[in-house]
Amino acid sequence: MTADGRSIGQPATARGQKTRQRLLEAAETVFGEEGFDRASITAITGMAGVAQGTFYLYFPDKKAVFVELVRELSSGLRRATAAAVEGLTDRMEIEERGFRAFFEFAYSHRNLYRIVRQAEFVDEEVFRWYYRRLAEGYVAGIEQAISAGEVRPLDAECIAYCFMGAADFLGMRWVLWNDRLPPEEVIQSMVAFMRHGIDARPAPEAAGGE
Amino acid sequence: MTADGRSIGQPATARGQKTRQRLLEAAETVFGEEGFDRASITAITGMAGVAQGTFYLYFPDKKAVFVELVRELSSGLRRATAAAVEGLTDRMEIEERGFRAFFEFAYSHRNLYRIVRQAEFVDEEVFRWYYRRLAEGYVAGIEQAISAGEVRPLDAECIAYCFMGAADFLGMRWVLWNDRLPPEEVIQSMVAFMRHGIDARPAPEAAGGE
Repeated sequence: MTADGRSIGQPATARGQKTRQRLLEAAETVFGEEGFDRASITAITGMAGVAQGTFYLYFPDKKAVFVELVRELSSGLRRATAAAVEGLTDRMEIEERGFRAFFEFAYSHRNLYRIVRQAEFVDEEVFRWYYRRLAEGYVAGIEQAISAGEVRPLDAECIAYCFMGAADFLGMRWVLWNDRLPPEEVIQSMVAFMRHGIDARPAPEAAGGE
Repeated sequence: MTADGRSIGQPATARGQKTRQRLLEAAETVFGEEGFDRASITAITGMAGVAQGTFYLYFPDKKAVFVELVRELSSGLRRATAAAVEGLTDRMEIEERGFRAFFEFAYSHRNLYRIVRQAEFVDEEVFRWYYRRLAEGYVAGIEQAISAGEVRPLDAECIAYCFMGAADFLGMRWVLWNDRLPPEEVIQSMVAFMRHGIDARPAPEAAGGE
């Protein structure tokens, strides 16, 4: 990755873009199924249907395509979440829609967990970047909601990591281990727990069950 | 591991126990620093100060000592948490002390994160067992508190995974990345968020800040 956040190997032509995208999609499957160490560039180009030499027009080596894949998954997840909450202003509604978008993203990117977790051992910098980048957007949203009196005055970064961790573990429990979206009652419990946890506005049901 | 949960290679004599413990402590350092693939039995026996042949009196191979290490870390964490909350009956106080015990355990077992996360790729069964075993105790405690009217009637397993995920991510953020326990204000925010999130009892400060 470059310092200004621009993706490496970003080609100028539409056809080049498409080839690069095919390589990244193949890499997502190969790294997810084989793991970084056992994955080969040959397997990636084979699955992408391009000549092995073509790979090097886009990425210098196996690690470079892996790092770029983590960055693409990060921006894909952030785009999916942003689209899901577009136009919403209520923080609690934003949280709920955002969690649902995360579970759906993990469900449609079945190797997301394996790839992000491998990143810790392949390139710790991009692993930390992945979570810090997600946290940044979260912190900004929570701080705004605190200023607006919508959310209790808690440490915004703490809440961001609590929410990300809770979503990550529920996604692991249901999407990764059980190959399905979390059941609706689980999502309802999660949302109720989080809403009560941060909501600053007294509500009639604030002390009762859902 | 055996089906009845008994540890493998558990020796009968006190001296044997001590050697086994030395091997596991060395394995914790070697697997944490080198990673499973690069770690060698020679490095483990060298650090433990025992002959290489001695290793095989306790463990059949590298994977066996790794799996046993994950199980020992799990029981060590559960023992530390149980000791920290001994005699307490208030669920919120139990949660707070439990989180503090977890952060302290992670701080004194600096390779905990790297080892548990590697487990996903070394032996997925023991990786899932690690979190499921932690969740079990949690679920039982939360269900009891729900029955007692102390905790809102939410899905107990959902809350257990939310809490474990939140603690895991805050531990990653502070203990793993910053080499320190989370600052007191972060712990206070976490506890306030979780308390409001599940507490069924109306409290005067329920809608305010901490």
